[in-house]
Amino acid sequence: MIHPIPAGTRDVLPDEMRELRALSERMRAVFDAAGYGEVRTPTMEYEEVLRRGDERAAGEGYRLFAEGGRVLVLRSDTTVPIARLVATRYPDAPTPIRLCYFSHAHRPVEPGRGTPAEFQQGGVELIGAGGAEGDAEVIALVLDALDAVGLGRHRVGVGDGSLFRNLMVGFGVPEDSRAELLAALSRRDLAGLEMLVSALNLSPVAREALVTLPTMRGGPEVLDRVSPTVRDALDNLRACHALLEERGAADRVIFDLGLVRELGYYTGVVFEIYDPAVGFALGGGGRYDELLGRFGRPLPACGFALDIQRVHTALMAEERLAQT
Amino acid sequence: MIHPIPAGTRDVLPDEMRELRALSERMRAVFDAAGYGEVRTPTMEYEEVLRRGDERAAGEGYRLFAEGGRVLVLRSDTTVPIARLVATRYPDAPTPIRLCYFSHAHRPVEPGRGTPAEFQQGGVELIGAGGAEGDAEVIALVLDALDAVGLGRHRVGVGDGSLFRNLMVGFGVPEDSRAELLAALSRRDLAGLEMLVSALNLSPVAREALVTLPTMRGGPEVLDRVSPTVRDALDNLRACHALLEERGAADRVIFDLGLVRELGYYTGVVFEIYDPAVGFALGGGGRYDELLGRFGRPLPACGFALDIQRVHTALMAEERLAQT
Repeated sequence: MIHPIPAGTRDVLPDEMRELRALSERMRAVFDAAGYGEVRTPTMEYEEVLRRGDERAAGEGYRLFAEGGRVLVLRSDTTVPIARLVATRYPDAPTPIRLCYFSHAHRPVEPGRGTPAEFQQGGVELIGAGGAEGDAEVIALVLDALDAVGLGRHRVGVGDGSLFRNLMVGFGVPEDSRAELLAALSRRDLAGLEMLVSALNLSPVAREALVTLPTMRGGPEVLDRVSPTVRDALDNLRACHALLEERGAADRVIFDLGLVRELGYYTGVVFEIYDPAVGFALGGGGRYDELLGRFGRPLPACGFALDIQRVHTALMAEERLAQT
Repeated sequence: MIHPIPAGTRDVLPDEMRELRALSERMRAVFDAAGYGEVRTPTMEYEEVLRRGDERAAGEGYRLFAEGGRVLVLRSDTTVPIARLVATRYPDAPTPIRLCYFSHAHRPVEPGRGTPAEFQQGGVELIGAGGAEGDAEVIALVLDALDAVGLGRHRVGVGDGSLFRNLMVGFGVPEDSRAELLAALSRRDLAGLEMLVSALNLSPVAREALVTLPTMRGGPEVLDRVSPTVRDALDNLRACHALLEERGAADRVIFDLGLVRELGYYTGVVFEIYDPAVGFALGGGGRYDELLGRFGRPLPACGFALDIQRVHTALMAEERLAQT
């Protein structure tokens, strides 16, 4: 008799479970020591409520029907529910508000892509702290958490979600072409991006700027090669780097100016965590200064989420490498 | 702006979350020390697979549609998924197999009853250990776990799911009337039960036995007053009481012979945990000797689940009482 479980889900047996628990506990201790209080939101929320925060985050989850024909979605992300929670439960609390969570999220699997339908995330949200100061706190915290669980080779790729968008605006890319360019960029399809850019009626300087930005990776010196059209974002990235240097975390930072995170709510710094032992991001995050306002409490915010399972896989891969 | 969350769900803020975590950790440590390894199953499973275990447990959950039109249900109970896991992942493992879990389960709210749509359970399953020996291990473990979290007034009500069913068979209650009587009993509707019994063509002894069994509560002496028609179950309850006495846990036991747990898979001992500080059961469990066989690995089994939120509420209520 075979008793299948849904594609993209898995059973976890005791040996692995013990390691996942230990890993989560170490991360939680780091978040706690940094003043981040743990919260929990419902697994299901009203779709119409999540849509107030982010159209896409609400739309991509599993849907089901509840009392009175209202549509419920299974949480596919925890940042939007926490923005809802902050606006509802902390309407007048002094800022910054530091919250963390360890929760499962769900996304319907994309056939053939081997994506998980259920994943366990540990993350933080720093609410009410704007600018490079907040960005650096959050990036340093994710690095601390990974140090604490025992990773040794992890790096953080840092970009700015506004960079490419502002370049497009600054160089007069027509509004109806921008989504297409952004989609190519977020797929890291640089050949496709170059074709799209060439088809537009732009100056050579503009073409060059749009096509080369996504290829710029490295230390803080890459910032000097970007078009001054986007000075604000560059100044912020420089300030963020200086603050991470003060915290002793700058050696783990790689600027990656083509980085665009999939969720639509990011407005500034975005980042992803990599480990050379595995071929996928362990998590990521960024600044979302407009999300809280959509729930009625306008506050700048920045956060990240780590995929606990992936962090565990990276940890095991590093251990294997160390043994050889 | 109001941003409602679904009926029967809630947000948990840091102070409460810290207490819920501490409580879960203490329970987990007790389970771990007793040799129960933690497992995790997917939040969603195929409905047709869960139905193999228990028609009702699969039918009462939230449903949604996945790839290829298959129906998924959100876990409404963790015992059936663990039976599936044991048959699949431990087809040849030596017994007994001791597993525990801490997971969320979901049930659509019943309008007006204030039931939760999402609840967090901590529980164990002892698989491959039959009879009073297994029953006593599981009942002693739930009491240990509650001692460890700091409860002081909890009691366990112990009955046997087969008692009333076997009395009905022994006294010749027609098969098509049995479900109705059992439904009245599980609602604890003793007046309704009496009416149904009176309408049947039974001997006075049979009527008396069926109507008084559900009222029998107390120490082991209540077992002496039950019709010997159901000797096997009574012998098992006496043996279980003796084993709990050896473990020093018998003083928390109240026999409650009308106890019937809602889930259909129980075959023997059933129990519920009460605390006089609150008006609801904190959890419960029982023996389910036929469930594993439905997944292809026939083994006796016994387990329990505690509702973490309710245990926390009871703990706070006891603390309030202690302060007055």
